[in-house]
Amino acid sequence: MSDKKFPEFANPMARPKYVGIPTFFRAPWKEDMQDVDIGIIGVPFDGGVTNRPGSRHGPREVRNQSTLVRMINQATGVAPFETCRVADIGDAWVPAPFELTASHNAIQDTFEQVVKNNIVPIAVGGDHSVSLPIFRALAKNGPIGMVHIDAHCDTGDDYMGSKFHHGAPFSRAVEEGLLDPKRTIQIGIRGTVNDRNLWKFSHDSGMRVMYMEEFYKLGVDKALAEARRVVGDGPVYISFDIDSLDPAFAPGTGTPEVGGLTSLEAQLLIRGCGQMDIVGADMVEVAPSFDPSGSTAMVGANILFELLCVTSEAFARRQ
Amino acid sequence: MSDKKFPEFANPMARPKYVGIPTFFRAPWKEDMQDVDIGIIGVPFDGGVTNRPGSRHGPREVRNQSTLVRMINQATGVAPFETCRVADIGDAWVPAPFELTASHNAIQDTFEQVVKNNIVPIAVGGDHSVSLPIFRALAKNGPIGMVHIDAHCDTGDDYMGSKFHHGAPFSRAVEEGLLDPKRTIQIGIRGTVNDRNLWKFSHDSGMRVMYMEEFYKLGVDKALAEARRVVGDGPVYISFDIDSLDPAFAPGTGTPEVGGLTSLEAQLLIRGCGQMDIVGADMVEVAPSFDPSGSTAMVGANILFELLCVTSEAFARRQ
Amino acid sequence: MSDKKFPEFANPMARPKYVGIPTFFRAPWKEDMQDVDIGIIGVPFDGGVTNRPGSRHGPREVRNQSTLVRMINQATGVAPFETCRVADIGDAWVPAPFELTASHNAIQDTFEQVVKNNIVPIAVGGDHSVSLPIFRALAKNGPIGMVHIDAHCDTGDDYMGSKFHHGAPFSRAVEEGLLDPKRTIQIGIRGTVNDRNLWKFSHDSGMRVMYMEEFYKLGVDKALAEARRVVGDGPVYISFDIDSLDPAFAPGTGTPEVGGLTSLEAQLLIRGCGQMDIVGADMVEVAPSFDPSGSTAMVGANILFELLCVTSEAFARRQ
Amino acid sequence: MSDKKFPEFANPMARPKYVGIPTFFRAPWKEDMQDVDIGIIGVPFDGGVTNRPGSRHGPREVRNQSTLVRMINQATGVAPFETCRVADIGDAWVPAPFELTASHNAIQDTFEQVVKNNIVPIAVGGDHSVSLPIFRALAKNGPIGMVHIDAHCDTGDDYMGSKFHHGAPFSRAVEEGLLDPKRTIQIGIRGTVNDRNLWKFSHDSGMRVMYMEEFYKLGVDKALAEARRVVGDGPVYISFDIDSLDPAFAPGTGTPEVGGLTSLEAQLLIRGCGQMDIVGADMVEVAPSFDPSGSTAMVGANILFELLCVTSEAFARRQ
Amino acid sequence: MSDKKFPEFANPMARPKYVGIPTFFRAPWKEDMQDVDIGIIGVPFDGGVTNRPGSRHGPREVRNQSTLVRMINQATGVAPFETCRVADIGDAWVPAPFELTASHNAIQDTFEQVVKNNIVPIAVGGDHSVSLPIFRALAKNGPIGMVHIDAHCDTGDDYMGSKFHHGAPFSRAVEEGLLDPKRTIQIGIRGTVNDRNLWKFSHDSGMRVMYMEEFYKLGVDKALAEARRVVGDGPVYISFDIDSLDPAFAPGTGTPEVGGLTSLEAQLLIRGCGQMDIVGADMVEVAPSFDPSGSTAMVGANILFELLCVTSEAFARRQ
Amino acid sequence: MSDKKFPEFANPMARPKYVGIPTFFRAPWKEDMQDVDIGIIGVPFDGGVTNRPGSRHGPREVRNQSTLVRMINQATGVAPFETCRVADIGDAWVPAPFELTASHNAIQDTFEQVVKNNIVPIAVGGDHSVSLPIFRALAKNGPIGMVHIDAHCDTGDDYMGSKFHHGAPFSRAVEEGLLDPKRTIQIGIRGTVNDRNLWKFSHDSGMRVMYMEEFYKLGVDKALAEARRVVGDGPVYISFDIDSLDPAFAPGTGTPEVGGLTSLEAQLLIRGCGQMDIVGADMVEVAPSFDPSGSTAMVGANILFELLCVTSEAFARRQ
Repeated sequence: MSDKKFPEFANPMARPKYVGIPTFFRAPWKEDMQDVDIGIIGVPFDGGVTNRPGSRHGPREVRNQSTLVRMINQATGVAPFETCRVADIGDAWVPAPFELTASHNAIQDTFEQVVKNNIVPIAVGGDHSVSLPIFRALAKNGPIGMVHIDAHCDTGDDYMGSKFHHGAPFSRAVEEGLLDPKRTIQIGIRGTVNDRNLWKFSHDSGMRVMYMEEFYKLGVDKALAEARRVVGDGPVYISFDIDSLDPAFAPGTGTPEVGGLTSLEAQLLIRGCGQMDIVGADMVEVAPSFDPSGSTAMVGANILFELLCVTSEAFARRQ
Repeated sequence: MSDKKFPEFANPMARPKYVGIPTFFRAPWKEDMQDVDIGIIGVPFDGGVTNRPGSRHGPREVRNQSTLVRMINQATGVAPFETCRVADIGDAWVPAPFELTASHNAIQDTFEQVVKNNIVPIAVGGDHSVSLPIFRALAKNGPIGMVHIDAHCDTGDDYMGSKFHHGAPFSRAVEEGLLDPKRTIQIGIRGTVNDRNLWKFSHDSGMRVMYMEEFYKLGVDKALAEARRVVGDGPVYISFDIDSLDPAFAPGTGTPEVGGLTSLEAQLLIRGCGQMDIVGADMVEVAPSFDPSGSTAMVGANILFELLCVTSEAFARRQ
Repeated sequence: MSDKKFPEFANPMARPKYVGIPTFFRAPWKEDMQDVDIGIIGVPFDGGVTNRPGSRHGPREVRNQSTLVRMINQATGVAPFETCRVADIGDAWVPAPFELTASHNAIQDTFEQVVKNNIVPIAVGGDHSVSLPIFRALAKNGPIGMVHIDAHCDTGDDYMGSKFHHGAPFSRAVEEGLLDPKRTIQIGIRGTVNDRNLWKFSHDSGMRVMYMEEFYKLGVDKALAEARRVVGDGPVYISFDIDSLDPAFAPGTGTPEVGGLTSLEAQLLIRGCGQMDIVGADMVEVAPSFDPSGSTAMVGANILFELLCVTSEAFARRQ
Repeated sequence: MSDKKFPEFANPMARPKYVGIPTFFRAPWKEDMQDVDIGIIGVPFDGGVTNRPGSRHGPREVRNQSTLVRMINQATGVAPFETCRVADIGDAWVPAPFELTASHNAIQDTFEQVVKNNIVPIAVGGDHSVSLPIFRALAKNGPIGMVHIDAHCDTGDDYMGSKFHHGAPFSRAVEEGLLDPKRTIQIGIRGTVNDRNLWKFSHDSGMRVMYMEEFYKLGVDKALAEARRVVGDGPVYISFDIDSLDPAFAPGTGTPEVGGLTSLEAQLLIRGCGQMDIVGADMVEVAPSFDPSGSTAMVGANILFELLCVTSEAFARRQ
Repeated sequence: MSDKKFPEFANPMARPKYVGIPTFFRAPWKEDMQDVDIGIIGVPFDGGVTNRPGSRHGPREVRNQSTLVRMINQATGVAPFETCRVADIGDAWVPAPFELTASHNAIQDTFEQVVKNNIVPIAVGGDHSVSLPIFRALAKNGPIGMVHIDAHCDTGDDYMGSKFHHGAPFSRAVEEGLLDPKRTIQIGIRGTVNDRNLWKFSHDSGMRVMYMEEFYKLGVDKALAEARRVVGDGPVYISFDIDSLDPAFAPGTGTPEVGGLTSLEAQLLIRGCGQMDIVGADMVEVAPSFDPSGSTAMVGANILFELLCVTSEAFARRQ
Repeated sequence: MSDKKFPEFANPMARPKYVGIPTFFRAPWKEDMQDVDIGIIGVPFDGGVTNRPGSRHGPREVRNQSTLVRMINQATGVAPFETCRVADIGDAWVPAPFELTASHNAIQDTFEQVVKNNIVPIAVGGDHSVSLPIFRALAKNGPIGMVHIDAHCDTGDDYMGSKFHHGAPFSRAVEEGLLDPKRTIQIGIRGTVNDRNLWKFSHDSGMRVMYMEEFYKLGVDKALAEARRVVGDGPVYISFDIDSLDPAFAPGTGTPEVGGLTSLEAQLLIRGCGQMDIVGADMVEVAPSFDPSGSTAMVGANILFELLCVTSEAFARRQ
């Protein structure tokens, strides 16, 4: 690792896991965003939720639990801290969180700084509405493909007086020309709905929607083959909603849906994206108050590490 | 939906999930049982448990969590509130709960009212002993078949001085001519026993017992094929004990047994019963005090919705 | 009790506490607001919190726990359901919760309906910002006095880009001529501050601020004597923030402050207001996700009952 | 200590607290009841509760937590294991728990064995209904006085079809000539009631009822003086219901009532009974499932130790 | 069962599960180790952990939860208490736990007593470092093979100044000639590492390492075939680390790793070892303070029962 | 505040509490110990506990909860960050934690660095054994007086093979000439003991032991007068063990004792030390795994702030 300012970050093996301040994976803390290749960044905002709030506390608890994660991916051999300058670049926080639209603008501002510094961002939510301002900063040069692992398509319409809530970021992203629906796959979709046409936007725009039942039949390998086919060789964003997991694995979230993925399936899915040209990622909707045990944030931290690994692979290939 | 008295039931999209009083699925509250096709009914009684009590609080907590469920089954397209008049018809409560036999009689009285009103009942326990008085009310015209998803056959003998405890309702139901053992399948059976012949009654009477190990090998589709073969075209009751699920998915129950079903497997099993002639159902043994997180009741509410969907399909076919 | 529509509300002794749907104190559910003297009303809104959200789920959980409360106040002999027509009049819910100002307007609309129906409101929050729209509806005829039991004066200034957050309702209420600061006492104030002049508004406007340390020295009786002196004979509102209690008694709240009141002290304080001319009340800031045990909501329900008792005494005197 | 059979009980200082099997205070396990002066005995029965069951698991969890307690009362200097032969004499368990009256008879049988062996019993509930069969065994020679610390007088009438539930043992005990109401004091009584005359029996029969509010004003010392005056020099039973404590101190119980005693007040109250002629005692209503932290059982174990100390003082005086 | 001293152990069916003191499976308590074939023994020591301590409380909580387990394995028909004299032989506790090496010596002393009494030990940890002193006592006559189910190979090197911590017992055991690496299989290995060569010892010494990903692809049956091939006909030890399970199934452990086994897979794996010549076993790393629900200990107790069953099969064959 | 490197620490009012990394009170992170007056320092070590470990995780969780604390003490007006350069100077961590004596030496080394940099240390445990190495570094110039708030005197003798465990630091400190027993007061002592002479060392050496019962009678003001009399004008250390609080207020600790202080009493006690010449302080024994709610750490953080305030007062007077 290049940054030696914080001794405990120089060599995580030198200190027990319970020592020091919890940055993401005990990586260097660099709010100035200088000399960073991949920046892990919190987005402590939950103003877009429609039922159970609390994911504003997600980044801190994921940071906490991430201190249990080590430096190398045993399954794939990837060692992101060896190949890239990875840093915790702080939080994209919102000074005036009481108005949804203004909050999204503030988040976008931070991510534009990230992009200007040539940093590949991996965001930790916060609710899923934050993916929209991230896309706005990230997709300035044309629409990006997406692997989207979630219980919900999040391509809904207006709800509770807003079109920017956490159930709709990706319809907005397509409308704004930021997301390429033809190169988008959504995996793990399930649950009850109040509108037969709730995810009409996904289907109409050409997204590949893989419902949980189909995933269960196909298995991980075939699902991954389909994902690779859909996203192709262009730039890809991975958006991972922790509610894609079954509530037994991740109860601490705002909109749990029973009948979901296991942690292992989620890990295998992300690892299988290692050859994609990943340009950004997020892991969202960890709401710690609904899981005092910390298990959800621990799973989230491990998923985050998988995202970091495949992102670092893509970054290394691009050099 | 036909009943407009309670505005929030007219259109669930109009109100956030955390608003109002929690009837089952925010359906109309109709203790008078008038103009109802399918009646969801609580049975807050746990006087039949042999170890950990608490399922008397099951109906209220399942009502609570059921407000997270929406109106349409995304996986099957079934919309029970569109095709049937579904109501929360209150609780089959017991005025004098200290004596087991008298309590069962009181529960039976309520279900006889349900039957007299031509309502198809879906009961929410309470402990599993309540299935017996339900059968007594429901099977007046001859024995019914059953799909029984559970960790235990519940066809035991006398225990702790009673033959009516929660481990024995179905031996009693067969003896009383209410349940047809030849048209009964029991799925998910497992756990340790104190008596090699504990479930002798199931085997001797001709029930099809599918132990967990067999289910694990067969998978959902083949298990369903076997279930359909066993129950055939006659009337069927579905009895779902939440302890059929692995404790990781449903810790809040009185007799947890490790090594059980996942929530997804349970959902798929019930959905696969959609073509059966379902005349009643129950979802029992949610004991909220053993799961303060509410997860067990949330899973229970989702299972209840699956039961409602297949019951509504059968109801619609019978019209 | 006058309303017989819901049988279980006719005589709460007739049914066990775990039976039926949980309205406040199992009182009649009357969203139409007809024939009601005192209306208990939920305000499931937490868009004004500055740190830990979740009090939008307060009303439902307080309703749940309120089913443990019985009909008569043993300590004072007051029986509110005998002397007044008490009802659960539903929720003042917000259709578009993403914008703070618009949300307050929606809440005000509901309370104007309450006032128009000559109902004395007792509100259950929700965050403390909701007291402002309640005052706007209630104090049309001139400023009201207040007994305010809280860890915070809630007379702050702009914060996080808004002047209407949950730390400022009462400065706004004074500015708008709704609250008479000279007839206001604030009890239990404590905790750290970021600004020496945080509660300057309280002091400058003439409110009587009784910090926790003073309360500890005076004791309940002398504190009550002071409260009676301050509010005098005019109309009074009681605002009870659950964070006035020590976190040992009420951990489930958004801004806990150690070193607070005991539950018994809080009960005695409210009982001591029985001779005041109470015209409205609220109990706010129960955030259930921070207390899975339900204890905070249970305390909240008991405090709510004390508020109901003294409000019913005042109501009876005014007839 | 006289019994050396179990090495770890010979000298508790020799082994860490987390070693071995948890008998009460790691005292010898003597189901045969031989050579025992004071017998601590579990009564795992909760068939008499009217709302939240679970105290059948109280004895085991209190045993568990009691391993944290040491041998000598630092505040009073009493060392019960030095002056008496104290043993864990097992459980008064019920073979057929589904019928309340028969269960009470079975419990009485066990306590008659205890009395026949000249053992002074200290019982651990179980629900409060079990005090009645204990009195039946203990008071063969005439009525006994009582110090009763509880949130409820438990002198109620028929409820839910039974006169023997956990809200009525002491009216039955008086009626059967087992308890002397004139020598009975009840401390800590509070909470809401559904009947103004709920505790009429206490008042009419001449019991001294000290409501929580009076206790709060008097303080521990004056309350104790009154207790001593009431019970006098005759034989006394101490019945301690864990719900006498405020739920902040003891949430794990079936009928919590806010505004109760602190643990310290409870300890001081029992210590102050050291000069009474105590002939038996119980500590009841610990329901562990409502407090997964174990705190309630830990407080219960410490209260149990205080009961053991004062009982051993009385025993030693009688030799 | 041969021992009749404790009545409740004579016939577990005679008493409800919540009665009496919790020895392992309510088996006889025999600290004297006489007349015992298989001895279940606690090892309450966690001085070897590198992050989260607490497994010293594992044995007691596993004892507690083991009272829910019954006498016969329904899946295999094995009834260990019928074919062997099974006892709870107490704890291998450490008088001076502050020094790691000395502690291991103390544990070894106890297990040498076990071996001298011709008892087959099944140990309940405690942290995984305790397997080393067990091997030292057990493998006096030459190295033993092993089925090792765990998230970690535990064949690490020096860490935190010690070579005897809970991540290294099996490299030490091989070095000391106690464990035959060629007859050792390690199943379920996964998680991140700080050193690419962390488990180099396993690979270099010839152990068969089955990573989680390989297990996922092979399935239980093929994994078992491989295990049988590796261990062959010689003596075998089974070491089960509860962290082999996914944290959704067993959160209460010191080093959780997401993406693990289900409880059912673990049960099937152990049952599949029924034909091996098992000479000892352990189940370690249950740390109850990280799972207040007791679920982890409950799973641990069931795994322990599976270990008991296959060990009793091997024992019977050797007679 | 002097350090501007971390923007969020420059002015805590500028950012919401849930933003950024949790140093103590969001103070600057200065592991280099330069330009610091008062250094808050974690001591994540629990190798000296005799029963329930886990306080090694105390510093991190206290840091987390300390972000809820603000900059100014409302009750006393003290603003430590205005008058002193306060920093989080990291952790005194132990590279080889498996041996108690060596660990204490490592901790002492760090504190000698602290002293060499003229920093007044406020330590956050860790178990109470860590006070000994702190004293060794701090009292080089002669014995210091102490205000010790705790449930235990911690002046015990050898236990479990060691004289340096967490029940004995202060006998060792007196023996080594670091602590002046004549200028030491111990407040809140209580609980059961296994040895009548357990705290003989305190009494014999001349410490003023104020048992809980005496404190309860005296009240805060008289207790403080006595504390001031005992410690006089010389240098004073304040050692606060979180188990001095009643478990209702602080359940998350290793050796809870019922019947303790309230949080308010503890706050008042420390505030009353504002005129003493404080040269160091600690707050120890927060064991987060025993309180998943975080309440204990939250109380600990507030106590820590009180310690910081009185220490800053003393520091300012000495300039």
